Amino acid sequence: MAPKTPAPKTSAAKSAPDAKRRSERSRRAIYEAALSMVSEVGYGKVTIEGIAARAGVGKQTIYRWWSSKAEVLLEAFVDLGQQAAEAAGGEDAFAALPDTGDVAADLKTVLRATVDELLDEKYDAPYRALAAEGVVNRELSEKFVQALLEPGLRLYVARIEKAQRDGQIRADLDPRIAMELFVSPLAQRWLQGTGPLTHAYTDTVVDYALHGLAPR
Amino acid sequence: MAPKTPAPKTSAAKSAPDAKRRSERSRRAIYEAALSMVSEVGYGKVTIEGIAARAGVGKQTIYRWWSSKAEVLLEAFVDLGQQAAEAAGGEDAFAALPDTGDVAADLKTVLRATVDELLDEKYDAPYRALAAEGVVNRELSEKFVQALLEPGLRLYVARIEKAQRDGQIRADLDPRIAMELFVSPLAQRWLQGTGPLTHAYTDTVVDYALHGLAPR
Repeated sequence: MAPKTPAPKTSAAKSAPDAKRRSERSRRAIYEAALSMVSEVGYGKVTIEGIAARAGVGKQTIYRWWSSKAEVLLEAFVDLGQQAAEAAGGEDAFAALPDTGDVAADLKTVLRATVDELLDEKYDAPYRALAAEGVVNRELSEKFVQALLEPGLRLYVARIEKAQRDGQIRADLDPRIAMELFVSPLAQRWLQGTGPLTHAYTDTVVDYALHGLAPR
Repeated sequence: MAPKTPAPKTSAAKSAPDAKRRSERSRRAIYEAALSMVSEVGYGKVTIEGIAARAGVGKQTIYRWWSSKAEVLLEAFVDLGQQAAEAAGGEDAFAALPDTGDVAADLKTVLRATVDELLDEKYDAPYRALAAEGVVNRELSEKFVQALLEPGLRLYVARIEKAQRDGQIRADLDPRIAMELFVSPLAQRWLQGTGPLTHAYTDTVVDYALHGLAPR
């Protein structure tokens, strides 16, 4: 995979050589072409040729940086995630989760932000197109999980491990499975449309997961 | 939608008129053609014409019973579910969940059976093809949820309501959301490949959901 170079900041771009600026412009144009095409025609019908034509670059420019359309699209999604994180005020999409000392409050904050992102029309169609392809295409699915899902899931695991050290989550639980109790309900509603996505819903899921369904 | 007529039992078939037997044979051939084609080429490329040709029936035979390929496929899946339930010894895919008086044991039994069904190669490709289309096609997704997911989810809700009356699940919980704590983790692993599907996994999810992540 190509290195995940974020777009240069304005000041850096001014001092960068023209060739580097041109290449960053091409990279961004390729990402935008790839994302809009997957939204419009679906993953299956997107081709490297089509992306090159829409981005206004030669096919060889794309092949110099990536070996397949799956890699172009995954990088485009990683870049989209970084843009979303920057727009939300963070520097890095994969920074740590908030830690106020109250794991329930922190999980609710993060899941509410995830609901907002999933409901953002800008991301809906391309995320859905890639997720749908992942359901039937195991090779793409593995790359999708590694590049896009796992980095986020590891942040939940780290926050749960911290809560275990703080005594807010039982120390004998597998944090990886514990996490799925509040992450997967949101994922299934988004993927399968089995219910509405709201802040009240994710708040409730966090409370149920932490306190359990059985009487205490 | 066409009525959900199960295939006649041998004794009934013997006394049925030839026309009815032929029509049941055609219906079954259409289901099998639809399921194998969606596995082979994906939902998007399946056509009524293609199903008719493979099933050895006229296009008009299909249009007499169904108005779209989505309806044919959904009926085929409902029929597949009924066959699976019959093969597992039950009469009806949508009968009640077991009730031994121990909700944890009952949920583990049902989720283990679901893992086995999801790992069955016979169902994997067509279920995935339909689920993938549902991720990007809202109209199909709504039909898919109504015809295939909701009947099963309502059984979980009914079992949870019984457990609430039995004092095994807190009476103040929304049973619909409570259910998602143990159903959605399995669904996400299946849809997104975020982890292996095993009986040990679903058992653990049930224990975590019932007893909660926080210390008691």
